[in-house]
Amino acid sequence: MPQIAILAIGDELLNGDQTDTNTAEIARILSRNAFAISSSLTVGDHELAIITALQRLAADFQIVLVTGGLGPTDDDRTTRAAARAFNRPLTLNERALEQIRQRFRDWKRSMHPANEKQAMLPHRSTPLCNRLGTAPGFHLHAEETDLYFLPGVPAEMRAMLDEEVLPKICQRFPDPLPKVQRVLTVFGLPEPEIEDRILSKGLAAGVELAFAVDLPTIEVKLRASGPEAGSLVDRAELLARQALGDYVVGSGEETLAGNTARLLRLTGKTLALAESCTGGLIAKLLTDQPGASEFLDRSLVTYSNTAKTALLGIPAELIEHHGAVSAICARAMATEVRQRAGTDLGLAVTGIAGPDGGTEEKPVGTVFIALSSASNVRLERFNFPGNRCQIRLRTACTALDWLRRSAFEQEAESKELSV
Amino acid sequence: MPQIAILAIGDELLNGDQTDTNTAEIARILSRNAFAISSSLTVGDHELAIITALQRLAADFQIVLVTGGLGPTDDDRTTRAAARAFNRPLTLNERALEQIRQRFRDWKRSMHPANEKQAMLPHRSTPLCNRLGTAPGFHLHAEETDLYFLPGVPAEMRAMLDEEVLPKICQRFPDPLPKVQRVLTVFGLPEPEIEDRILSKGLAAGVELAFAVDLPTIEVKLRASGPEAGSLVDRAELLARQALGDYVVGSGEETLAGNTARLLRLTGKTLALAESCTGGLIAKLLTDQPGASEFLDRSLVTYSNTAKTALLGIPAELIEHHGAVSAICARAMATEVRQRAGTDLGLAVTGIAGPDGGTEEKPVGTVFIALSSASNVRLERFNFPGNRCQIRLRTACTALDWLRRSAFEQEAESKELSV
Repeated sequence: MPQIAILAIGDELLNGDQTDTNTAEIARILSRNAFAISSSLTVGDHELAIITALQRLAADFQIVLVTGGLGPTDDDRTTRAAARAFNRPLTLNERALEQIRQRFRDWKRSMHPANEKQAMLPHRSTPLCNRLGTAPGFHLHAEETDLYFLPGVPAEMRAMLDEEVLPKICQRFPDPLPKVQRVLTVFGLPEPEIEDRILSKGLAAGVELAFAVDLPTIEVKLRASGPEAGSLVDRAELLARQALGDYVVGSGEETLAGNTARLLRLTGKTLALAESCTGGLIAKLLTDQPGASEFLDRSLVTYSNTAKTALLGIPAELIEHHGAVSAICARAMATEVRQRAGTDLGLAVTGIAGPDGGTEEKPVGTVFIALSSASNVRLERFNFPGNRCQIRLRTACTALDWLRRSAFEQEAESKELSV
Repeated sequence: MPQIAILAIGDELLNGDQTDTNTAEIARILSRNAFAISSSLTVGDHELAIITALQRLAADFQIVLVTGGLGPTDDDRTTRAAARAFNRPLTLNERALEQIRQRFRDWKRSMHPANEKQAMLPHRSTPLCNRLGTAPGFHLHAEETDLYFLPGVPAEMRAMLDEEVLPKICQRFPDPLPKVQRVLTVFGLPEPEIEDRILSKGLAAGVELAFAVDLPTIEVKLRASGPEAGSLVDRAELLARQALGDYVVGSGEETLAGNTARLLRLTGKTLALAESCTGGLIAKLLTDQPGASEFLDRSLVTYSNTAKTALLGIPAELIEHHGAVSAICARAMATEVRQRAGTDLGLAVTGIAGPDGGTEEKPVGTVFIALSSASNVRLERFNFPGNRCQIRLRTACTALDWLRRSAFEQEAESKELSV
């Protein structure tokens, strides 16, 4: 396996203006193709710093992936530094120039003279096609090392890595050990319990277990490499699913909201929401999904008490007596919104997201969730930790999880009926 | 000014599992305190790689900030590598041990024996207090270089950098040139036009202009350093505000939604929303802000046509004849929701976010926004570019911008009245 390093170039990455997402993206793509990154380095837009970094990395690694500094303006110095680092003159590359011209023709815009600078490449380097922008990348072979220079714009970098660079790397280093990864998204279990449950099922030798925590959900990653990778990971996934049961809320790229929306569409259940403390967040997460109109009839964000009375018929006395944040109010909201909308399901949330509004009896984080169907009402009181944003997100995810489970249960029921 | 480098440690940063946000965060905090980062390096959890990196960085830089690898488990190897890199034995540090014990007492949990490992520090290093977690950091002076070791958990790292490391750096390198940055958030102007407008006003020598694009908003950053930094940036901000007028939708940390919510609260205007294609996103953005209940009465996410008829009294024939995505429907939604809620403002959006549902006459991206007040209705048709997520976000930001401007205009009016 080749030793691979990444070099990210740009003042904006070292002054806090911008978080470098390219390095993680390159690592993800290469890792999916069974290559590993050994090290990554970031330097600013200083020619000497770039030259030193290129020379060091070329001496230590077989492949160096460079991002940034290929633009048309004066602070883009990567190409000139590459030429100087490896003692190559800069020459006008006709193929690169034609590619830049073509980009402007595509966009029906006239080319700025500064863009011609982007076609000046180190002698004996090969331009890499950039479908999405003006900056051609280039490939340079020096001191037994392959250096690939890519633009810093994430979409351009990604497309060029996929289409231009990966094939060249795979050609030089064919047949790496196949590497397989499976991702399960889990909601409702803490990380240590997920780990215990999976390990108690026994993780086959050669299968690696990793976690990516993005609360309130946690991604479980199962990985293996080698000729048996596929079947190893298949078996590990099966055991993990047995260990985690219905706490698995998505797999692969699918999110909790995406999975919930898919199940609601599949089962043909219709839904109406009444949201108080989440203020539209549940509806937003569901309508992020294309086709949400197939199941979502409405969401009533009844932020004020008068809206609860006017839109859902919650008696003002009920609110006065029990409070808008109460089990009885949540139950009434869920039932009323379902009946008024004529949907299969009615879901309501009411709570105190803070930072103000908490009392001793109902501190910040107190949330009631109610889910009404024709046959029953599920109702629960929660005390969620965290700040306003975390409380709202955890409320929304819990509500989505209830919907996911109810869609699922209904499907199981009707399956049984049809047997 | 000292030469400063960052070293980030962790396999998860080089296999694509996690994007390194610590480096940008450290850069931001140091840059705000007038220090600059020269270079940053990332290596995996391999002891030899860590040792080599530490020795190289200590040779080249005066300050090295290290993050990650201080945990209690076997794959946390930073401390041992530091001890070996600078030939120091690992010894039990009593202050560090007491700090870890205190953390567990605070949490009312018993301490796992593995956590004792975290108190083994290189000889002659000083523990750094970690208020938020178990891993103590430490400071080690070797080869004229100050090395600060911090945990990889972002919140812990950040608190320790602020409270423990920055004071020590400022003590060793006092009186750096003061550096001042001012941030203005702009909505509704493209980046080149923002630049042209600001440059045509004349940017004083010594003031740097930078952009952070996070569409649909753009952050404009004005920076200067030196003894005159404050007044230079003050003047530049004034000119930039003149150049950009009311396209400035926030300054400092304030977002478009935050600014809109603040202005609505300030002016005492109340608001009701009727959202179709945004599906709750506008309400979500407004209720992200604490205190939104002061102005937001309700949002009706009328996703289905029957909901539009039932909740807003939009005649079914109107929808049949003109379509739910039409000027007349948007106008009726805004007026109805305002009148029914009894609020000062009623805002409605209806559109086609895609990916399906577009027609030749009304392609994906067609959006109508209407804002109704007691005296008039503002109504506009848009054709927004991008995918579902981008169209929804641009619709929501345009709606917020209308609300912001209307609150502002109303305030100006009432000010005139009170004169």
